[in-house]
Amino acid sequence: MTYYLGIDGGGSKTLAVVSDGTGRILGRGMSGCGNHQLGVELADRNMREAAETALAAAGLKRDDIAYAMFGLAGADREADFQILRPMVAAMGYAKHDIVCDTVIGLRAGTRQSDGVVLICGSGTNCYGMNAAGEELQVGGFGYEFGDFGGGVELAKEAFRAVIRAWEGREKPTALTELVLDAAGYDNVSDMFHGFLDEGKRAPHTFAKLLFQVADRDVMARSILERQGMELGRAASAVIHKLNMEADTFEVVLAGSILTRGDGQYVVPFIERQVKEAAPNCRLRTLGLEPAAGALLLAMDRDGMAVETKVYENLERDLSVKERNVEWVMD
Amino acid sequence: MTYYLGIDGGGSKTLAVVSDGTGRILGRGMSGCGNHQLGVELADRNMREAAETALAAAGLKRDDIAYAMFGLAGADREADFQILRPMVAAMGYAKHDIVCDTVIGLRAGTRQSDGVVLICGSGTNCYGMNAAGEELQVGGFGYEFGDFGGGVELAKEAFRAVIRAWEGREKPTALTELVLDAAGYDNVSDMFHGFLDEGKRAPHTFAKLLFQVADRDVMARSILERQGMELGRAASAVIHKLNMEADTFEVVLAGSILTRGDGQYVVPFIERQVKEAAPNCRLRTLGLEPAAGALLLAMDRDGMAVETKVYENLERDLSVKERNVEWVMD
Repeated sequence: MTYYLGIDGGGSKTLAVVSDGTGRILGRGMSGCGNHQLGVELADRNMREAAETALAAAGLKRDDIAYAMFGLAGADREADFQILRPMVAAMGYAKHDIVCDTVIGLRAGTRQSDGVVLICGSGTNCYGMNAAGEELQVGGFGYEFGDFGGGVELAKEAFRAVIRAWEGREKPTALTELVLDAAGYDNVSDMFHGFLDEGKRAPHTFAKLLFQVADRDVMARSILERQGMELGRAASAVIHKLNMEADTFEVVLAGSILTRGDGQYVVPFIERQVKEAAPNCRLRTLGLEPAAGALLLAMDRDGMAVETKVYENLERDLSVKERNVEWVMD
Repeated sequence: MTYYLGIDGGGSKTLAVVSDGTGRILGRGMSGCGNHQLGVELADRNMREAAETALAAAGLKRDDIAYAMFGLAGADREADFQILRPMVAAMGYAKHDIVCDTVIGLRAGTRQSDGVVLICGSGTNCYGMNAAGEELQVGGFGYEFGDFGGGVELAKEAFRAVIRAWEGREKPTALTELVLDAAGYDNVSDMFHGFLDEGKRAPHTFAKLLFQVADRDVMARSILERQGMELGRAASAVIHKLNMEADTFEVVLAGSILTRGDGQYVVPFIERQVKEAAPNCRLRTLGLEPAAGALLLAMDRDGMAVETKVYENLERDLSVKERNVEWVMD
């Protein structure tokens, strides 16, 4: 039997999964941060720990793995790969490769090799591959480098909207009650001074409050609309630069803001733009753990023709259960 | 003869001036940062140094000063005053007070006690006082706490616009050539990776590039328009909260972005809003060093009726010479 290892290394957690050639999951391992940008040794240790736990659960050894695929947050540029290549090589998997976590997200969300993935978790990112195998990433480096949004920034926007309404720079917002409640203050003045006195910043959990009041609050809706517009713009840029305008492919929506937030306040603004850029594309919310994409890529690289049965097994064993999804965590 | 000391303590420099009762400047002293939020001991030392230099130049001693007024960046809230009161008291001026630098900016810019001042330097701020002496500050604590803009943030917007145009998230912009030139790169790809590799951030001097291309670049104009809209919104909030809608007063424009930048790209967006909020108000660009406002407040507090001659002398001795103004520095 042939076995594969797929790793999804994110900013807050790393998930390793081992499957056989039919996509049945034989073992899982979970650990902490797998993003080397947040600590090289930490990421190294966490990836090893997650992989070894998964192997042990499967009753397998490293040499049993036909191909190991590492999909890592922070594997963005050549400078990153220069750190990651020796680190991963030292883990001892004969055949392996490293890709950005956007790449496994795309592969997990579509059954064809070409497509576009939009990630909106703690930050945002966009990646695409066309039918010729050309790739492009637009985003992932924060506001100053062109992005807008993700949970960390949306939380700031929610907090800021409450401050501005209190000051009279904006109209009153239904966010006020929820933000005060979540922050544990009786009124905005106390919260404003409390945050300044203690050097506190809006916790990223505030992002979900936007969805909670969106049905009755124009400010929350406008922040979420801006998020959708920005994601749509990134996807359109990828579509045009990779000449995918006439292609038929999927735009995969990933990350907690897109998979857990109420889609109606964000997705239509993405959809309008990507449909205009590529009328034959279709939006699809990621329903599998991105680690499934790492397994699929491992199979692709191993020369396996991935059959329907594999997708079905992965969907049974690695589908995202709502209760397991943490808000605004990559 | 009666003598006054006025101090303008900013984030990058502190200016102390000594005048007689007619507003003639007898001595000046300049030193570094006078904002205690950036270092309590440093601000203490710099304020003393600037004041002593000014006194020495005037041939006066501390006891000759009838009233000393300290206008300080960072004197925003009670928590700040708890630090500043003992610090300034220990400097040994029998009669003195401390106000926020917004307050001296307003006093320097208008001949009446009520009015509104908008500051757009490295950050933004807004302060007003109505005819009854009620005061309000809206802003001054950065984006998350409700502000937008100032040189530091405008510089980021300029840099970001270039990145987004290169990626295809925005249309091409004339900012590209100027930003590349200022940053010392041949192309955007090299700049993007260079900034990421070296952890560099857009230097605040990029803000002035917006004005340099505004006549031919829609992106630069839209960033400056947003700045104007935001400042107008802050001023309108102050006007409404202080019930100044029917009053006749001046809205003083201060800070390098407003005093040095080409007004046509920012000021109309302020003007439209403040005129709507208070039809009898008038916009006026600050033409005096804010330290002049500290002197005027010192005279006010000393019970002096400030005559036209005083304003004329201050305008002769403390008007802002364009060559002395540094870009985007408070």
